[in-house]
Amino acid sequence: MEAVIITIGDEILIGQVIDSNSSFIAENLNMAGINVSQILSVPDRSSSIKQAIDQGFTQAGLIIMTGGLGPTRDDITKQTLAEYFNTHLARNSEVLKHNISFLRAREVKITERNRKQADLPEDCTIIENDFGTAAGMWFKEEKRSLIAMPGVPFEMKEMLVNKILPQLKKQSSLPPIFHRTILTTGISESEISEKTASFEDELPSHIKLAYLPSPGLLRLRLTAFSADNISALDDLNIFIEKLVRIIPEYVYGFDKDRLEILIGKMLHDSKKTLAVAESCTGGSIAQKITSIPGASGYFTGSVTAYGNSIKKDILHVNKSTLDKHGAVSEAVVIEMAKGIKNLFKTDYALATSGIAGPEGGTPEKPVGLTWIALATDGGTYTKRLQLGEHRERNIEKASKAALFMLWKKLVRLSSQ
Amino acid sequence: MEAVIITIGDEILIGQVIDSNSSFIAENLNMAGINVSQILSVPDRSSSIKQAIDQGFTQAGLIIMTGGLGPTRDDITKQTLAEYFNTHLARNSEVLKHNISFLRAREVKITERNRKQADLPEDCTIIENDFGTAAGMWFKEEKRSLIAMPGVPFEMKEMLVNKILPQLKKQSSLPPIFHRTILTTGISESEISEKTASFEDELPSHIKLAYLPSPGLLRLRLTAFSADNISALDDLNIFIEKLVRIIPEYVYGFDKDRLEILIGKMLHDSKKTLAVAESCTGGSIAQKITSIPGASGYFTGSVTAYGNSIKKDILHVNKSTLDKHGAVSEAVVIEMAKGIKNLFKTDYALATSGIAGPEGGTPEKPVGLTWIALATDGGTYTKRLQLGEHRERNIEKASKAALFMLWKKLVRLSSQ
Repeated sequence: MEAVIITIGDEILIGQVIDSNSSFIAENLNMAGINVSQILSVPDRSSSIKQAIDQGFTQAGLIIMTGGLGPTRDDITKQTLAEYFNTHLARNSEVLKHNISFLRAREVKITERNRKQADLPEDCTIIENDFGTAAGMWFKEEKRSLIAMPGVPFEMKEMLVNKILPQLKKQSSLPPIFHRTILTTGISESEISEKTASFEDELPSHIKLAYLPSPGLLRLRLTAFSADNISALDDLNIFIEKLVRIIPEYVYGFDKDRLEILIGKMLHDSKKTLAVAESCTGGSIAQKITSIPGASGYFTGSVTAYGNSIKKDILHVNKSTLDKHGAVSEAVVIEMAKGIKNLFKTDYALATSGIAGPEGGTPEKPVGLTWIALATDGGTYTKRLQLGEHRERNIEKASKAALFMLWKKLVRLSSQ
Repeated sequence: MEAVIITIGDEILIGQVIDSNSSFIAENLNMAGINVSQILSVPDRSSSIKQAIDQGFTQAGLIIMTGGLGPTRDDITKQTLAEYFNTHLARNSEVLKHNISFLRAREVKITERNRKQADLPEDCTIIENDFGTAAGMWFKEEKRSLIAMPGVPFEMKEMLVNKILPQLKKQSSLPPIFHRTILTTGISESEISEKTASFEDELPSHIKLAYLPSPGLLRLRLTAFSADNISALDDLNIFIEKLVRIIPEYVYGFDKDRLEILIGKMLHDSKKTLAVAESCTGGSIAQKITSIPGASGYFTGSVTAYGNSIKKDILHVNKSTLDKHGAVSEAVVIEMAKGIKNLFKTDYALATSGIAGPEGGTPEKPVGLTWIALATDGGTYTKRLQLGEHRERNIEKASKAALFMLWKKLVRLSSQ
C-alpha cells in the first residue's frame, strides 16, 4: 500500500516551525508495511489543500493529513474537507460531551470556540481524540481514503498509534519494509564508504545501503524489500553483521540506540554510579543522561563549572593548575573529573573543558579545542578534540564524544 | 515570486530524520519576498525526483532542492538533474582543486569518491561549497530555474545565505512578506482566542493572525501582505501593539526572542550573576542558558542534584526538611535555591524539584508535580506546577517556567 502525507500550516511554509509530524507518521506507516511515496506541506488555504489532495491521490490511494483542526480562525481543514467530499458540518454530540468534560477536568474555561470544535463533517468516521479537543476524521471511498488528524504532535501521535494504525494494518496487504541502522562515530562518510565499497558491490538488489551523517554521528541504514517477510529479515540481519565486521571499532549501537540509554543500562546492571563536571558542554551531558527514565538510579548529579571559581571552590581544581595550564587543558580536565568523582562519591565521572565559541579563542587555544576526561577507580583517561567554530555543534559533538568515551570503557569492562 | 522546495532522501520518507532544511529555506525565501507555495519530500529515486520537479514547476517558476549530493552511491541527484535538463556530467577542475585542498586541511584521506564529487552537469552554473565538497548547481531556463544544494544543513545554510539569496533578491520583484510574532506563556489557545475575537474582527484583509502552540509556549503570528513595503510594516507594528495591549501579562517577547537570550541580556546589562540547582530538570536549564554565546559572563554554573545526598551534602538542604517534606516540596526547593546562591555567590539562583515521570508518582505527589524557586537578595519566591505524564514535555515545561519566573523578576526590577 502507498500513502502520501500532507501537513497543513502557514507556519511550515514560512519556516516558522519544523514539520516533525510527517517524520513520525512516515516511520509508523513504514513499519505497518505502508510505503510513503511523497510528503507535501501546504498553507492554510482551501485551494492549496484541495490541490494537494488531488496531487496526493494521483500518487497513492491513502492520504494522511495533519493540521488546521484547532479552535481558532486560521484552522480551516474541516470546512475544506467537507467541501472536497461534498458533505457539510454538523455538531457531533459525543465529541461535544467529550470536549466539555476534557476541558473541565483541566480547569479550562469553556468557550464557544471549544464548542465549535464539535462541528464535524457528516459523511466521515469520527476518530476520538483522547488527549485534546480536535477530533480526527476518516473519509472512505471505494478506491481512496483520507485521514485527517490534529497537528499538535502529542495528540496526533496517540491518535495515529492507538486509533488509526490498528485499522490500517488490517487493510495493508503488502509485506512490511524492514530497516536496520548501524550507529557509528569517529569516522567520515567518505572514509567509511571506501571501506564498504566491495560490501556494497555484493549487496543483492532487494537490500539497499544509505549513509546518514549528523553532528558527531554517522548512521548506516540497510533496507530490505521482499515479498517474503522471514527471508527479508534474515537477509537484513546477515548483511548487518557483515557490515559491522568491516568497521567494528566505530560501531556503538543499532537503530534507536542512544549512548545515554546504552550507558544507563550498563550502569544500572552493574550497579555503578556516575557524576559529571561540565564546563564547555554547560549541562548538556547531564541533560542527555537525565532525559532517560530511571536515570536517578545511577546518575548522582553534576556540576556545571562555568566560572573558574566553581572549578576551584567546588571541584577542588588546584589554583596552580589553572594558572599554569589554563581552564582548557588536560591537567585541569583531569582534576575536574577526579574532583567530581570524590565529591559525589561515584564509580565514574566525566569532565569537559573547551572553548565552545564563537568568542574566546586564541592562536594557541582556538575555538573548538576541547578536553574530555573520564575518571574511574582504575585510572583517569583523557581525549583531546579539535572541533569547529559553531557553538551549538561543538557542544553537541563534545557531549557525544564524552558519552562515547564512557560507553567504550563500560563495554570493555563488561566483556572482561 | 513563487517557489517550491523539494527535499530528497529516503531517510525523510521512512521517518528516520526530520527535514529541518525546508524550514530554514522557507524562512529565508520569505524574507527575500519569495513565497513558498509547497514543500515536497521525495525518495532518492530518479523517477520520483523527476516527477516532483514536474509537479513543482506547475506551481512555481523556481525550485529549490536539497539532498542527494554526497559522495556515496545512494546520492543520485546530480545524475538525475543532468538527465532532466538534457546535459551530462563532466569533471570540474576548480571544484576538484577546492575539494582536495578542503580535505587536506582537515587531514581527511582523499578517495576516488571524493574526486567524483567534482563530476558535475555541464549546462548549469556551479555554486561553490565553502564548507564541504558537494558543490551546488543552478539550472536557468527562460521561464524557470532550479537550484540544487547539498543536504548537510550546515553546508546548505551557508550556500543559501551567502551564494544564492543575494542573487535571488536581485531578481525578486515582489515586495517582502512581513511577519511578526508575539511570544506568550501561561494561557491556552482557546482562552487567548476568546480575548482576541474582536481584534480579529477588526483586522484589515492584508493582515492575518495565526496561533502556534508548543510545550510551555503559545506564539501569535501576524502577517502583512502589501504592495507598499513601508505601510505594510507600519500596519503590522500598529496591530502588534494593539494585540499586546489585550494580553500584556502573558507576553514575554517577540519573534526569535528566547527567554535565555532575554535573561542573558538583562543579567549582562545589570552586571548580575546566576546559578541554578536542578533536580527534575536534570541540567536542561543550564544547557539552555549556556547555549547562548557570552553566557560565561553572567552564568556561574549549576548543580544537578539528582540524588538526595547531593541536595544535602553539596547544596546544604537540611536532612530534617527532606525527611519531613520529601524532595519534591516547597520547603526543599527553597533550601536548594538558597543553597546554590550561597555556594556559588550569585545574585540570583533558580531551583527545581519535581517528579518528571513516568515512574515515581504517588497519590499525594503525582507524576508532573513540580516546585520551582527563585532566590534573590530581596527574598525567595516559589511556584507550584502540576504538569502532565510525559517526561520530556515535563522537563521542557518546568525549565521554561523557571526561566519565565526569573525573566519576570528581572523585568520588574529593571523598570523600577
